[in-house]
Amino acid sequence: MGGDFAPLNEIEGAILAFRQFAGTKEVDFIFFGPEELLRKELSARAPKEMRYTVVDAPEVITMKDEPAAALRSKKNSTIVRGINYHRDGHADAFLSAGNTGAVMSGGTLLLGRIRGVSRPTIASFFPTTGTQPCLVVDVGANVDCKPKFLYEFGVMGSIYVNQILGIRSPKVGLLNVGEEESKGNTLALEAFALMRTSAAMNFVGNTEGRDIFMGACDVVVCDGFTGNIVLKLAESFINVLRIKLKDFSSRSFFNKLSVALMIPTMRRVLKEFDYQEYGGVPLLGVNGVVIIGHGKSSPLAIKNMVVRATEVIERQINKRIEDALSSINQSEGEG
Amino acid sequence: MGGDFAPLNEIEGAILAFRQFAGTKEVDFIFFGPEELLRKELSARAPKEMRYTVVDAPEVITMKDEPAAALRSKKNSTIVRGINYHRDGHADAFLSAGNTGAVMSGGTLLLGRIRGVSRPTIASFFPTTGTQPCLVVDVGANVDCKPKFLYEFGVMGSIYVNQILGIRSPKVGLLNVGEEESKGNTLALEAFALMRTSAAMNFVGNTEGRDIFMGACDVVVCDGFTGNIVLKLAESFINVLRIKLKDFSSRSFFNKLSVALMIPTMRRVLKEFDYQEYGGVPLLGVNGVVIIGHGKSSPLAIKNMVVRATEVIERQINKRIEDALSSINQSEGEG
Repeated sequence: MGGDFAPLNEIEGAILAFRQFAGTKEVDFIFFGPEELLRKELSARAPKEMRYTVVDAPEVITMKDEPAAALRSKKNSTIVRGINYHRDGHADAFLSAGNTGAVMSGGTLLLGRIRGVSRPTIASFFPTTGTQPCLVVDVGANVDCKPKFLYEFGVMGSIYVNQILGIRSPKVGLLNVGEEESKGNTLALEAFALMRTSAAMNFVGNTEGRDIFMGACDVVVCDGFTGNIVLKLAESFINVLRIKLKDFSSRSFFNKLSVALMIPTMRRVLKEFDYQEYGGVPLLGVNGVVIIGHGKSSPLAIKNMVVRATEVIERQINKRIEDALSSINQSEGEG
Repeated sequence: MGGDFAPLNEIEGAILAFRQFAGTKEVDFIFFGPEELLRKELSARAPKEMRYTVVDAPEVITMKDEPAAALRSKKNSTIVRGINYHRDGHADAFLSAGNTGAVMSGGTLLLGRIRGVSRPTIASFFPTTGTQPCLVVDVGANVDCKPKFLYEFGVMGSIYVNQILGIRSPKVGLLNVGEEESKGNTLALEAFALMRTSAAMNFVGNTEGRDIFMGACDVVVCDGFTGNIVLKLAESFINVLRIKLKDFSSRSFFNKLSVALMIPTMRRVLKEFDYQEYGGVPLLGVNGVVIIGHGKSSPLAIKNMVVRATEVIERQINKRIEDALSSINQSEGEG
């Protein structure tokens, strides 16, 4: 529950994942929500072979709820019950298209952090003009950052991209106002100094706003304030284009015709800018596997979140993060 | 000099401005650069009636020069000589498509600040889906900001938009990660507290990355680190679209045809996203009128910079800023 189209899109997404996995992977689905509603919708939709259980969680944390307060007051919400279920070992991952802040805070508070991680973070893939997307980290979890956080974001992002996209030595850039080492605010200057000598990632230096979509780096590191604004601005581009075209189209019959002719082409070109293809963002750095989806997640997006969760588990991303960051902190302690 | 196509685009732009002003406004142009070169190009191009003088400035601060060092070492550069000429009262405004950092630092150091201004700032218009552009301030002048700077950016931006676009009570928003008052990093939270009670601007609260292009506000205030990244990301969008279309087009003959058919429409639709139409950004808060152009400024962009400079002078924007900010500082002192 909590997503804009819950529980239907969640159920349909799980069914899509079940179908995709058929014959290759066995996944048990656990649905949290008002039990009666879920059982009714599931029995009407789920294939007979699909294995699932339902856990009653009658409360819903809405998009309007203040995360910290809601986590305290709504103990029987899908988010609190689901994350606790995961923490207690009854589930290998937790997925939600609900209130992002609540999932993030809940994940951090209830699951705790991986050893060596100062702050869990949310990373998001951006489309690029190249063949691979670019991971921007952090996109809103930490609005005030210390240089060390940014350093850790780089290490976590690098491991994630390496394991999920199969890029051998992901290029990690620091989002900044210029390419030169001397550029940036105090945070960026200090983070640069930490990152430049790191053996835990392939740091390629500063990268600018215009480089994100161009795919200049595989991982772009920034504080969550900047990253969140960048994410929302980037997401708005497609919408702006749509409005501009509609506007233009409405001005004359000829305009209408020429826009109509280009729509199929535009659709195909811009498909790669469709965020639902990326299916949710990981909460990196927590002791668990948490995938956060957009409130408007379609069944396809939910399906992709399930696939992503299995990848994060199978490729032991959390263990790799712990190995990388706890060894760094150890060597810091020795030095 | 200093612009990518100097001095030709500068000269052609001045000629365009002269033609546009013909019969309504008399402007004396002063060109700074290698005297012989300028005289040659000008005598070959300028209409007989156009009034201009040439001031010899044989040195050029290039795009690669470090601004502070270049300002010290190149006293005979077009930027240093031009700004000094303006400071000494021989010119009413200074315009350059050269090294932005050098023009900004030179403007601040040589002209000084308007009374009541803590930090001069650079503001830039963004296209919107509405009828008016949105002014984002700061877009790179101040990468580390105090809350008070953001407050002043709001006041200066508001006056600028009011005078240049004729919007009576411009809506000023604070760029943030959410609309609620409780959202944001430390800087945004403190700036919000300062701005919310201000009588010097129409503060409408927090605004998000997605709202910029939607024209939700007339002025969007942020620190120069965030603003610079937002500006460069936004500018890259058209380029990304171009590359995507080219890519798609190259895949088959049918694709090529359908892209070719849509190009004229796309051009017209996206014309409004063409940054050269806005013709340069003002360095707000200095004791003078300084307009900074993109290095790639076309003659049209240069012409628009000249028009903009005359507007800033005629509408007494600096005096209005001084009145607004010095009175605030006074009332703070009294209170």
